[in-house]
Amino acid sequence: MNEEIGFIGLGKMGQPMVMNLLKAGFTVKVYNRTPDKAKDVVAAGAQQVYRPSDVVKTGGIVITMVANDEALESVVHGDDGFGEKLGPGGIHLSMSTVSPETSRKLAAYHYQHGSHYVASPVFGRPEAAVAQKLFVLSSGPSEAKERVKPVQEALGQRVFDIGEDPSSANVIKLGGNFMIMAAMEAMAESFNLAEKNGIDRNLAAKVYASTLFNCTVYQGYGQMIAKKVFEPAGFQLALGLKDCNLVLEEANATKTPMPLASLLHDRLLSSVAKGRENQDWSALTMIASEEAGLE
Amino acid sequence: MNEEIGFIGLGKMGQPMVMNLLKAGFTVKVYNRTPDKAKDVVAAGAQQVYRPSDVVKTGGIVITMVANDEALESVVHGDDGFGEKLGPGGIHLSMSTVSPETSRKLAAYHYQHGSHYVASPVFGRPEAAVAQKLFVLSSGPSEAKERVKPVQEALGQRVFDIGEDPSSANVIKLGGNFMIMAAMEAMAESFNLAEKNGIDRNLAAKVYASTLFNCTVYQGYGQMIAKKVFEPAGFQLALGLKDCNLVLEEANATKTPMPLASLLHDRLLSSVAKGRENQDWSALTMIASEEAGLE
Amino acid sequence: MNEEIGFIGLGKMGQPMVMNLLKAGFTVKVYNRTPDKAKDVVAAGAQQVYRPSDVVKTGGIVITMVANDEALESVVHGDDGFGEKLGPGGIHLSMSTVSPETSRKLAAYHYQHGSHYVASPVFGRPEAAVAQKLFVLSSGPSEAKERVKPVQEALGQRVFDIGEDPSSANVIKLGGNFMIMAAMEAMAESFNLAEKNGIDRNLAAKVYASTLFNCTVYQGYGQMIAKKVFEPAGFQLALGLKDCNLVLEEANATKTPMPLASLLHDRLLSSVAKGRENQDWSALTMIASEEAGLE
Amino acid sequence: MNEEIGFIGLGKMGQPMVMNLLKAGFTVKVYNRTPDKAKDVVAAGAQQVYRPSDVVKTGGIVITMVANDEALESVVHGDDGFGEKLGPGGIHLSMSTVSPETSRKLAAYHYQHGSHYVASPVFGRPEAAVAQKLFVLSSGPSEAKERVKPVQEALGQRVFDIGEDPSSANVIKLGGNFMIMAAMEAMAESFNLAEKNGIDRNLAAKVYASTLFNCTVYQGYGQMIAKKVFEPAGFQLALGLKDCNLVLEEANATKTPMPLASLLHDRLLSSVAKGRENQDWSALTMIASEEAGLE
Repeated sequence: MNEEIGFIGLGKMGQPMVMNLLKAGFTVKVYNRTPDKAKDVVAAGAQQVYRPSDVVKTGGIVITMVANDEALESVVHGDDGFGEKLGPGGIHLSMSTVSPETSRKLAAYHYQHGSHYVASPVFGRPEAAVAQKLFVLSSGPSEAKERVKPVQEALGQRVFDIGEDPSSANVIKLGGNFMIMAAMEAMAESFNLAEKNGIDRNLAAKVYASTLFNCTVYQGYGQMIAKKVFEPAGFQLALGLKDCNLVLEEANATKTPMPLASLLHDRLLSSVAKGRENQDWSALTMIASEEAGLE
Repeated sequence: MNEEIGFIGLGKMGQPMVMNLLKAGFTVKVYNRTPDKAKDVVAAGAQQVYRPSDVVKTGGIVITMVANDEALESVVHGDDGFGEKLGPGGIHLSMSTVSPETSRKLAAYHYQHGSHYVASPVFGRPEAAVAQKLFVLSSGPSEAKERVKPVQEALGQRVFDIGEDPSSANVIKLGGNFMIMAAMEAMAESFNLAEKNGIDRNLAAKVYASTLFNCTVYQGYGQMIAKKVFEPAGFQLALGLKDCNLVLEEANATKTPMPLASLLHDRLLSSVAKGRENQDWSALTMIASEEAGLE
Repeated sequence: MNEEIGFIGLGKMGQPMVMNLLKAGFTVKVYNRTPDKAKDVVAAGAQQVYRPSDVVKTGGIVITMVANDEALESVVHGDDGFGEKLGPGGIHLSMSTVSPETSRKLAAYHYQHGSHYVASPVFGRPEAAVAQKLFVLSSGPSEAKERVKPVQEALGQRVFDIGEDPSSANVIKLGGNFMIMAAMEAMAESFNLAEKNGIDRNLAAKVYASTLFNCTVYQGYGQMIAKKVFEPAGFQLALGLKDCNLVLEEANATKTPMPLASLLHDRLLSSVAKGRENQDWSALTMIASEEAGLE
Repeated sequence: MNEEIGFIGLGKMGQPMVMNLLKAGFTVKVYNRTPDKAKDVVAAGAQQVYRPSDVVKTGGIVITMVANDEALESVVHGDDGFGEKLGPGGIHLSMSTVSPETSRKLAAYHYQHGSHYVASPVFGRPEAAVAQKLFVLSSGPSEAKERVKPVQEALGQRVFDIGEDPSSANVIKLGGNFMIMAAMEAMAESFNLAEKNGIDRNLAAKVYASTLFNCTVYQGYGQMIAKKVFEPAGFQLALGLKDCNLVLEEANATKTPMPLASLLHDRLLSSVAKGRENQDWSALTMIASEEAGLE
């Protein structure tokens, strides 16, 4: 496991991921637009570079974990982007949450340059990244997936192979975020019905999360929705709306009616119209409360 | 624990529940409209009677576990009903899934006769009943809840106190069934999006049930929805529609808009219009598939 | 046209209808729960009686124009109800907006007593009643419809025969009210989109009502929705919710999914949760405005 | 009225519009990608040219009436496009149904070249164009609108000034198309409820179109929806979906939740998934029929 890894993007997710790579014995070169953020990982043994293209040698592996599609395209194609450098045999392991369309385009781009693209978004929050408990999705050419697997395994508890199509892992990631939002709306409506019947919302949340729905999504968000406390934002509502729009675009492109996604979209859009874009995405549930005349 | 218990309703849930009561040392008198069904529990030590009113002495405890609101009202008020017999100090432990309204009416009725009503629906299927793994909800007067608690504990893995209002446990039960159906629709739309993108539905189901949603509802129903196999019916779609209608009636009565419940209602109603009332309630997801032009 | 008519219900609709019957040469006996309201029609020649059963002789015609299903059942079946009196050959011309189910029950009741029931709700507001411009729906046995036709023609500009089934006219009436509410929501969303793009709502309303939608519903309600002025109430929102619930019950009974009706139901229910039950039913459009962060 | 007009786009709408311009005394130069289509208007006095840039002299007026946003951009910016030629004082009178965004971009483009852009979509089908009965919307700079008004008046029965913002007329046009589709869905659900109650759909359509909704949209589409005959297509369903997507994009951009538009979108998308993209857009109502198990 002496492979050298380039790593771009040292946010709340990226930093603990680099730590786990170092712990697993990888040599890691890191780049971040704001250089400050590299301090801790450098102290732990990472090597800092100041241009995206410097994280990798031709034929190497680059992990990207950046904020959005635009940021991703810029570290590949922008001035000092690593795209051309990566070259024959190189692998771009793309772990950010981006659109299937962006993955398709980048996969085609790398293919033209002799390198490979593996889409590899994750399920899990920063705490899970620290604890090496992420779930890692993986789609792309088989050989490339094989080569990066040890890297992925150093980052999470389990890797899921989603097939050859580069966009598939992104579709699964978006579908998961949609299902989380659907669970939030379901909880909100159910808790409101309880409250309107004189039952404590927190009790309702506890009962469901201890019985039928004893899994993290219901346990964590259930408490926030019961208490109507949506700050600090673990994941901003504006990003939830962005993901929901990506879901609906993909649904449109593939002719897949998703009325529940449409409902969630309208909740999120209303939340933004009311100025809640910086709250946690679970704040989408306030629309249901307001419609019921609660608060 | 030498209390004598009357038990009415020996269906798929009732029979294993009686078994567990016997195992816990209770004396149990049983009644079922079709007497045949008592065979196994009688062999295990229960005493069979042939009129609802014969299951209980004045001041005793009667458990009801019957098909619906009408059946429940008939064993209380009908010819040979146990309602008047139960009398001062008696407790009606009502474990069927019925409407909050029926609970309110029965609580008032028993109160007038000096007896108590404890609403106590459960989460769990027949297998859970056998394994004494039910989750038991409990709402009603405190003293009455206290007295029946050992009985409830003999039937499940945990008892949740939902307060004094007799209808509260029913509201929580209905809310849970609504949340299950919401999860089904969310899975269906997500799996369809995956399928339309060339991803195996079963893989999508597996990934979600192993990561974000590693709880029974998603694991069990996820497989059925991925495979589109809805028979045999664990819980009939017609009953799902009945429960959804109860949710919407309660929502209407308490002025709680529930657009996701409205969406599910229309899915269920369409399913019945297409002749699927006897399939498992997860068959409600076929509407999303058909709308997407799948199958 | 010397037929004697009994008329029950002297509200905003009933009074001008009696006036038109008198003008057409009919002899009219009137009953109203609050006797005061008969003053004007008595001055114009109607004969006032003080019990529902006194408005008619056996074999005659009784028109009912009362507030709701309960009021209707009470003037038929209640103390002094006209139900039994009407007898062989009599006709109950039922012009109130009631549920199809109530019409079915009353038709069966009258049939048992040898009399006939014609359901005959109308489209039109009090101004239209005054101007003899109502549209009159008519369903029931052919002979009975034939006999009451001159009466209906004295009340409106056109009579529509909706067939033999007594409930059919009520279904058409409810469907019409549903379509009005759908038009309101469509206008609201469209005007909001205009407003958010910096276009005057009133201009948008005027353009649509002068071009594609140059009919009364869009012209009248369009102005109210553009100006967001919902008082005084021409038709109370609480009654709109009642009608929408009747639509959904009928939809449920006949297995007809109506997702647009479900959407409207949730708008109306939210409006009531926010205390708007006494505003005009077009106030249902405020939910869309609030969701958009307008006002 | 001796102004010379350039006219681009000789489809079903464009041809009768040119005829009316000639009749009103204008000199008209016409261009169409397929030159054949000019035959009739040339016979009536129009002058045919073979490049978009040849329809106009600097400072003149060009009307565009083409299929979609791409076609519009190409006749302006493409090889031989008229964009640069139009020059100082020229006016582009853009009458196609395009997105507000395209209007904003073209307005900015013309402004940079000293010319003006007036967005001027119309309500009305080919028959209305022939009869000079179109309704013409008009938004853009006041002076430019003033100069083209005689031209617009030669084409329709009435011109509506929608203000200075170039995109406003397009927003109003899209809002109108949305309202038409909402009316279609409302009719479908209402007719289905009637049919399920044993009432003839055609009778229901006739009653509504003769009473509450006596305007063209309900009269024309009402018959198609009642009879379920959606061919030949007056306006293709695929174009309806395109417009609905434009509505939702504009709603997204301006933070205007439109749940009824979301519902319609899912109907249209399902229709396309089922292969109905070439039927008339009123075929979107088949989804409601299928959900009800009709046909």
